[in-house]
Amino acid sequence: MYDIVKGLPSTHGDHYQLNTTTLIRHAARTYPEQEIVYRTADGGWDRYTYADCYRRVRAIANVLRGLGIGPADVVGVIDWNSKRHFELYWAIPALGSVLLQMNLRLAGEDLAFVANHSDAKCVFVDETLLPVAEALVAQGVGVQNWVVMTDRPMSEVSTALPNALSFEDLLDAASDEIDFPMIDETSAYSACYTTGTTGQPKGIYYSHRGIYLHAMAQAQGLSLTADDTIMLITPMFHGNCWGLPQSGAFAAARFILPGRYAAEDTSVLVEEMIAEGVTVANGAPAIFEPMLRYLETLSDRPDFSRLKLLCGASEPPLSMMNGLFDLTGADVVHGYGATETTPVVTSNRGIKAALRAWPNDRQWNHKRYQGLPASGVDIRIVDPTGVDLPHDGVAAGEVLLRGPWIIESYYHLDDNADRFFEGYWRSGDVGSIDEYGYLKLTDRIKDVIKSGGEWISSIDMENAIVGHPNVLEAAVIGVPHPKWQERPVALVVTKDGAEIPLAEIHELLDGKFAKWQLPDTILYLDALPRTSVGKLDKKVMRAQHGDVYAE
Amino acid sequence: MYDIVKGLPSTHGDHYQLNTTTLIRHAARTYPEQEIVYRTADGGWDRYTYADCYRRVRAIANVLRGLGIGPADVVGVIDWNSKRHFELYWAIPALGSVLLQMNLRLAGEDLAFVANHSDAKCVFVDETLLPVAEALVAQGVGVQNWVVMTDRPMSEVSTALPNALSFEDLLDAASDEIDFPMIDETSAYSACYTTGTTGQPKGIYYSHRGIYLHAMAQAQGLSLTADDTIMLITPMFHGNCWGLPQSGAFAAARFILPGRYAAEDTSVLVEEMIAEGVTVANGAPAIFEPMLRYLETLSDRPDFSRLKLLCGASEPPLSMMNGLFDLTGADVVHGYGATETTPVVTSNRGIKAALRAWPNDRQWNHKRYQGLPASGVDIRIVDPTGVDLPHDGVAAGEVLLRGPWIIESYYHLDDNADRFFEGYWRSGDVGSIDEYGYLKLTDRIKDVIKSGGEWISSIDMENAIVGHPNVLEAAVIGVPHPKWQERPVALVVTKDGAEIPLAEIHELLDGKFAKWQLPDTILYLDALPRTSVGKLDKKVMRAQHGDVYAE
Repeated sequence: MYDIVKGLPSTHGDHYQLNTTTLIRHAARTYPEQEIVYRTADGGWDRYTYADCYRRVRAIANVLRGLGIGPADVVGVIDWNSKRHFELYWAIPALGSVLLQMNLRLAGEDLAFVANHSDAKCVFVDETLLPVAEALVAQGVGVQNWVVMTDRPMSEVSTALPNALSFEDLLDAASDEIDFPMIDETSAYSACYTTGTTGQPKGIYYSHRGIYLHAMAQAQGLSLTADDTIMLITPMFHGNCWGLPQSGAFAAARFILPGRYAAEDTSVLVEEMIAEGVTVANGAPAIFEPMLRYLETLSDRPDFSRLKLLCGASEPPLSMMNGLFDLTGADVVHGYGATETTPVVTSNRGIKAALRAWPNDRQWNHKRYQGLPASGVDIRIVDPTGVDLPHDGVAAGEVLLRGPWIIESYYHLDDNADRFFEGYWRSGDVGSIDEYGYLKLTDRIKDVIKSGGEWISSIDMENAIVGHPNVLEAAVIGVPHPKWQERPVALVVTKDGAEIPLAEIHELLDGKFAKWQLPDTILYLDALPRTSVGKLDKKVMRAQHGDVYAE
Repeated sequence: MYDIVKGLPSTHGDHYQLNTTTLIRHAARTYPEQEIVYRTADGGWDRYTYADCYRRVRAIANVLRGLGIGPADVVGVIDWNSKRHFELYWAIPALGSVLLQMNLRLAGEDLAFVANHSDAKCVFVDETLLPVAEALVAQGVGVQNWVVMTDRPMSEVSTALPNALSFEDLLDAASDEIDFPMIDETSAYSACYTTGTTGQPKGIYYSHRGIYLHAMAQAQGLSLTADDTIMLITPMFHGNCWGLPQSGAFAAARFILPGRYAAEDTSVLVEEMIAEGVTVANGAPAIFEPMLRYLETLSDRPDFSRLKLLCGASEPPLSMMNGLFDLTGADVVHGYGATETTPVVTSNRGIKAALRAWPNDRQWNHKRYQGLPASGVDIRIVDPTGVDLPHDGVAAGEVLLRGPWIIESYYHLDDNADRFFEGYWRSGDVGSIDEYGYLKLTDRIKDVIKSGGEWISSIDMENAIVGHPNVLEAAVIGVPHPKWQERPVALVVTKDGAEIPLAEIHELLDGKFAKWQLPDTILYLDALPRTSVGKLDKKVMRAQHGDVYAE
């Protein structure tokens, strides 16, 4: 797909393959004493070292071999952010097998589809998640082996899984002597399926090479060293936990694995962050908002000036970002990526030197941007005909992505040509890039409003309307129009249920939008339709209100 | 040479090649405003930006194309650490051509050998170095084009080079529009020849892949970011300037290019470090010792607590390391590598957390070690039969190296099998690795003393003997012995010319060496033989004193 030019052969070790096994082996060799702290089944905390971890990784690999697992075989994992999950992150790919990330939050039939589509040979499941695995069996998913991860004797575990094996029993019987093979670096390391609301999940199979390069770039991007302590909050069962297990191991950082408590108990997370001196954690506003609330209740505020909170999924609210900073010194680092991109595409750490003379407000506003691309990722923004747009901070186009950790296809899905353009993956996001290189997303391409040959950003307009003191929530959709193709229509929920004069809405938008972009129609509703995961459901809105301008 | 196992094909962008061009393009896109500061011909300082630099890089690539240079062609550079040299680091490899690093310090016939062996098509030479190029012509080196780099009109430059062209004239006429090709990452990026004292220089041809991965690892190892300011002191004409141009660009750091003044004028370097807030610089004790002397003369000591001084070539003296730290807070980071290793193999930054409770003296002693391996480099230490030795900090064996930026062969040199062992490059160094992963070199393998089936480290014994108040310098060599294979013989120069009783010497070694390892023979000399570059010449010593135990 690329026109690749050959030069003179080098004398370098170009046969040496980039294998994720190198990351954990190197960490265990150079920092054997480094700690990994994990939540135990009874809710306490325990710890072991990289040396201990790598010893178990080797034994697990022997267990896998004993079960007949070899190169190219797919092995599923249903687990929280546990010590065992962390070990499986290394042991499965070390054999050239593929770690299938099984997303607990997928609907049952979708997870069954994932297990079948990937042809999983074996699934490891945490005892607390047996119902998820049993539901798969009920849906006819047949795998060779179910392995149950529990601290208890298997005789005490009751499960409907056929021929369930005990992880720890297998491990007790396994040798920790193994000579790991060198894996072709283009081989799949792990598999993760999209959670798209339309159609079946699509498979993304990350290579050792892509994961390794992503780890190296992330380690530099976050300045990770062995003096860092990383708490993995976002689930390890989706999107490689944002690549932090790998970049952290590359830097031989300390890890905190909060198990199944990650998203459930904010106070436990915060207290552990304080106790262990966490410097990096990943999550979404849904995690960090309650964290801020909890911190506000503490009379003795912790010093989080070394803490970077990596925030994805949706744009972090400004109040949350500077609330956390003012209270504790923590830096909320907004990042952007997708399942298809391993995931890190851009991040917005600190503020670059050239902008530090800006007024405070402007700097904070810039910190809400998606940020600067990771070194190694090529970003284009193009208009609907595929022509590149200038990087002037104004022109907005679809974001196209290319690089060593961006997908070039979907697994066993032939009909995906429309997701790629000239070797770039089409993100489906609309954004602009400014003269300093910062990416700012303005919309999903399917939500953008196409009016009179131009695009209107629904997100920017919504943010402006929510600024009205009586607005609870707002959405702006494009509605078909006989003359202008589409016109923006605002759907608004007010706090007191009363309507707001149109002129007041226009006043909010004045200066931010051109006259012709302003919505002529505001519909007042009791609530806005949302998807099962709580996102605004614009598909439903368009279906319900698409006839406003019908002739 | 490796047994590589194939897994399942991934959906990642594994076709996307690691090209050094990506590093500079990315820096210019994300930090177009970042400064590069350089020394001018008149001894002043000037500055431009990454955007300016990348514009010139594109134009230079067009100049090269105009000269008929294409993929796999070799282009030599004879220059100091200049702005133009920095630009050529990117422009030449961007076309798939090979940057030949021409070491000014090689003897004339060796440099001519390098130019001929590499089949250089074209050489770029700084005006101040015309005599070096002219000497090559006198030795019959014929290249297609000589390009002279000068600020002056060519009419004012007098040179014996045939058909010399002006770099700036060519550049003025060139377009800066170019569509860089994607280069197969295993293609040679640059070539550098060893400066071995025996035999002809041997060619090392670094690949884009190796250089790129080395840059990523180094950027993490030094925690480089765009807030760093890197001064390149070690010559850019050898060993890729330790990879800092590439790792710095990967992190979009600021650069300071001191031109030909690098090694000549310590006060200028130090004052510029202070003025520009340098955070990283590379050099050898020969640079940093005078720097310490100069700093001692300043009444107003600078705060260098952010400064890392990367120190290679030879073990940094303890007095220099803690002298610089005590005076300014600078961290001397001892590193280890070779031309064959791109070069970074290990480095000793700060001190790892597990050792921070040690007494101060012990920590400082550990900071003299070669340090921890870069993530991605596999190190073995083996006995003379190739058996791996334990990592206990005691057992010493030959250091074997493998990894993406370690050579697998020498260029066009078939007879090099003895330099490799089981896919590892044989460093020729002897060292131990302790339980914390630190490498400590104890000898060159050709200098190690093999006695009674065991090895005795000459370096450790020399260091101990030099501890005697009356010893000026000392060397220990292995001398053939009819019964013990070899026995250590110490060659000593005393301050007052008097001999020291053998018992006193043995007392110095007591506790550090076993009884059987102690030298029975001490020879007192007026001076020790040294090589042209000032290193102890043990070859000569062995020739002169090899018959001590002859029957």
